[in-house]
Amino acid sequence: MSKQETSKVRVYALGGLGETGKNMYVVEVNDEIIVLDAGQMIPEDDMLGVDVVIPDISYLVQNRERVKGIILSHGHEDHSGALPYVLRKLQVPVYGTKLTTGLVEDELKSQNLRKKTNIKQISPGDRLNIGTTKVEFFRVSHSIPDCVGVAIETPQGYVVYTGDFKFDQTPADRKFSDVGRMTKFGKKGVLCLLSDSTNAEVPGTTPSEKATEPGIKAIFREAEGRVIVSTFASNVYRIQQVIDAASETNRKVAVVGESMKKVIQISKRLGHLRVPKNLLIKVEDLSDYKGHEIAVLSTGTQGEPTSALHRMAKGTDRQISIMPKDTVIISASPTPGNEKSIGRVVDFLYKVGAEVVYSDKRVNVSGHASQEELLFMLNLMKPRHFVPVQGEYRMQFAHGELAHTAGVHPDRIHLLDNGEVLQFEDKHATKGTKVPAGNVLIDGLGIGDVGNIVLRDRRLLSKDGILVVVVTLNKKSNEFVSGPDIISRGFVYVRESEELLDEAKQKVTDTLRECMNDNVNEWSSLKSNVRDVLSRFLYDKTKRRPMILPIIMEV
Amino acid sequence: MSKQETSKVRVYALGGLGETGKNMYVVEVNDEIIVLDAGQMIPEDDMLGVDVVIPDISYLVQNRERVKGIILSHGHEDHSGALPYVLRKLQVPVYGTKLTTGLVEDELKSQNLRKKTNIKQISPGDRLNIGTTKVEFFRVSHSIPDCVGVAIETPQGYVVYTGDFKFDQTPADRKFSDVGRMTKFGKKGVLCLLSDSTNAEVPGTTPSEKATEPGIKAIFREAEGRVIVSTFASNVYRIQQVIDAASETNRKVAVVGESMKKVIQISKRLGHLRVPKNLLIKVEDLSDYKGHEIAVLSTGTQGEPTSALHRMAKGTDRQISIMPKDTVIISASPTPGNEKSIGRVVDFLYKVGAEVVYSDKRVNVSGHASQEELLFMLNLMKPRHFVPVQGEYRMQFAHGELAHTAGVHPDRIHLLDNGEVLQFEDKHATKGTKVPAGNVLIDGLGIGDVGNIVLRDRRLLSKDGILVVVVTLNKKSNEFVSGPDIISRGFVYVRESEELLDEAKQKVTDTLRECMNDNVNEWSSLKSNVRDVLSRFLYDKTKRRPMILPIIMEV
Repeated sequence: MSKQETSKVRVYALGGLGETGKNMYVVEVNDEIIVLDAGQMIPEDDMLGVDVVIPDISYLVQNRERVKGIILSHGHEDHSGALPYVLRKLQVPVYGTKLTTGLVEDELKSQNLRKKTNIKQISPGDRLNIGTTKVEFFRVSHSIPDCVGVAIETPQGYVVYTGDFKFDQTPADRKFSDVGRMTKFGKKGVLCLLSDSTNAEVPGTTPSEKATEPGIKAIFREAEGRVIVSTFASNVYRIQQVIDAASETNRKVAVVGESMKKVIQISKRLGHLRVPKNLLIKVEDLSDYKGHEIAVLSTGTQGEPTSALHRMAKGTDRQISIMPKDTVIISASPTPGNEKSIGRVVDFLYKVGAEVVYSDKRVNVSGHASQEELLFMLNLMKPRHFVPVQGEYRMQFAHGELAHTAGVHPDRIHLLDNGEVLQFEDKHATKGTKVPAGNVLIDGLGIGDVGNIVLRDRRLLSKDGILVVVVTLNKKSNEFVSGPDIISRGFVYVRESEELLDEAKQKVTDTLRECMNDNVNEWSSLKSNVRDVLSRFLYDKTKRRPMILPIIMEV
Repeated sequence: MSKQETSKVRVYALGGLGETGKNMYVVEVNDEIIVLDAGQMIPEDDMLGVDVVIPDISYLVQNRERVKGIILSHGHEDHSGALPYVLRKLQVPVYGTKLTTGLVEDELKSQNLRKKTNIKQISPGDRLNIGTTKVEFFRVSHSIPDCVGVAIETPQGYVVYTGDFKFDQTPADRKFSDVGRMTKFGKKGVLCLLSDSTNAEVPGTTPSEKATEPGIKAIFREAEGRVIVSTFASNVYRIQQVIDAASETNRKVAVVGESMKKVIQISKRLGHLRVPKNLLIKVEDLSDYKGHEIAVLSTGTQGEPTSALHRMAKGTDRQISIMPKDTVIISASPTPGNEKSIGRVVDFLYKVGAEVVYSDKRVNVSGHASQEELLFMLNLMKPRHFVPVQGEYRMQFAHGELAHTAGVHPDRIHLLDNGEVLQFEDKHATKGTKVPAGNVLIDGLGIGDVGNIVLRDRRLLSKDGILVVVVTLNKKSNEFVSGPDIISRGFVYVRESEELLDEAKQKVTDTLRECMNDNVNEWSSLKSNVRDVLSRFLYDKTKRRPMILPIIMEV
């Protein structure tokens, strides 16, 4: 038997399929596990109080001795943000390019994880062993510099992961997607391609990052007063354009927001950002300059109420308030679900009298390949099997259709769910046993302790509030010694509801007396009786269903 | 002095400016108040637990004897949904066309308000007195039949309110926007035009409602299995197209959802919907037919988790589950903020294997005039003053720019906020004293009792839950007689946090003992001490800030 026939290759996702963000894909070559990306996700609206969502890595933890490394394709948080959490449970080497590891190291330092972590800096074009498996990196272009795709050599052919990519023909750093190397993989034989589906529903070709350069410059030239540009902290190319436009129009640049300051500092240090001397100034020093001498860089493109842009627009920021004659550029697409909060910020800005440029092709382009580019990638790689990754199911679906167009046999196009395992033997794919996959919610210091019960309670509390009923009973004498008292929060406006709450109290008293006369004196029955009676009474009176929490104290 | 010079006309909005939905505009001619529309709004995300939002009508209630009537421009909820709440506080005649009042009457009946209410049915073209003021109605086209605009005669000229409109050249009922009558107002002199700004940012002309007919028919013809169409309950034209397409392709139609059943029944009765005999069947009878003999009409276009479409897609509906070969048409635009929930439903549908048609011009058009039509309206009316109404501030702003293009002097283009009063004397406008305006939140039976305090508590509770600390004290002996006990909800998963909660209990005990030794025995100080100590302790341990509710019972 040849090596190829005995080899086993497994491919699956722990995050990134059927949802946005939280990318984590896994390739197993025989016994060795290689992890591709470790992304985090912004919580959905119904994950109340949750700060961050990361993938469930319990399968990796169970098989820790088999995990040989984590490869980061680029430095965006939806591909690298879960790393600190993962490293706490799984100490394995981390591979990434200079900028990617630079951004990540900073975060690890702040969490005291840097020293414990073995970070291996790689360059596009490198070919090295991770465990005993050969892995080759190839450059791709995207909206942040220094991105790579990953080709893993297996006895059955390459497993290729594109990471986020587009084919940018005029990248700012003149570093192109490495089509030559991709052709090589295609020629040698790609067993399975995992490719970015974000824009699989978008026809045509995604414009170059450079496309926004003239628009931004024109706005800078024409603006009478200050120009405030809001973009993602990690969009280094866009930041460069703002810096260039400011420099050309003799404006100083003040940077607002810690994450953006951090990215600028690291990108400068690593040579990915060219900033003329004395161009950057502190926000405090803005008052030394006239409007037309000023540009401001800030985050807050998604209308987040806690962001600097929101505060500046509303006039609640301590340092900068938007004024008439200011020009505000929102240089990012809305993430689905954020349209309303962005609309609110735009409205504030208009009301103040600022010029607003938003949802405008002049100042923003996507970082992800559209259909023609996805087809190009498929044609270069000529994969035997295809797994569309990243993006909601309908995008994976659209990407699957493209693969079919590109000649991949429908039986070899695999639309997976997180946790579903694709198992290759002799270049033939079957579904293996599912591995655990799902959302791990992080709230404060707690990782995964906020689950369904806690969220259900928060949802209940958020709808109609809570009503706490306390009474102290003397169980021997069967008498109330204190209470019942009722305290409510988030249910009704207490000052105007005294009558209702007094009635409710009377209901509780009656119920308790009845129970005690009937010798129902198990706490649990007392409590459930109180809860039932009160719930019915309050629903009749208010059509609301607060959480009811009966507490019986015993003396 | 002529009558014109002494007359006073006031125009303002109680809702509808700077937000979506909740339209209510007011025109005062000397002492008479005429109300234009009474809309409701779907609560924003941060209005936790709130069912509906209506305008603040306290100014109208204070001036109740001056209010002569409420005119409804059409039957959509964002223009008529607040009527039952308004009528409870303000019993004045209600004016509307046959379909509009038909839809409203049904709702009033269900709330026992029908008999008390004086409903006056009007027809487009009518001219009548409301109080002593002459009011004329003119037909406009929109996405529901029987819509009117309103022209109020004042000594200084007409005040014209367009309502929602577009210039549909092929309306299904061949009833056109009444350009002739509009021209008349323009010739006689329009003091002030209030016009629909929804699509003021959209270039060109909005397609006719008819534009979706061929698309829907084609999909019906090509569908192998069932066709499920989701649209707004009140989109009568679209419903007609579905019924026609079903009839032509020999499909029976089952209707899901109470609101849609109601609209269909009323529209049929009033002659606005033609339904072939035996076409409608009950959902229960669907099993008697094959897939290609079935069409289903349902609501749920916004991805609402409680909607039939969501349930059918997820397979949790008791009667209908989406299956492979089903074709699902979502025939409505996403309301901003709903993109994510709609995306989720679309994903479910794809996963089941259904054909999905959504965000597709073939099956949906806007009901609101775009820029060219807005300019046409301005050119017909030639208003002296212009107030862009309905839509967020940036849309009002864009509409203002259009008015400028159409020749309205910038000083006479008034971008108002809700409650801001525009006062006309001698055709000259000044700003009057603001009237109260804002959101009144409705939660269950409570109207307006959910205010900032209750919402703040709900928000707090939704983030990190609640921790209730109870202790029974004997104040005389200065001793604990029961407790302290700690009960939490929505904070941590209790079973896995026993240690934390035990420690917290110990902290409370220590704090109380200390206080009592120090003779701090005012309840309020005890409570605030407990709250402070516990809050700090829990934040240190968990980085969460649950609401802390200390309760001290006294014996």
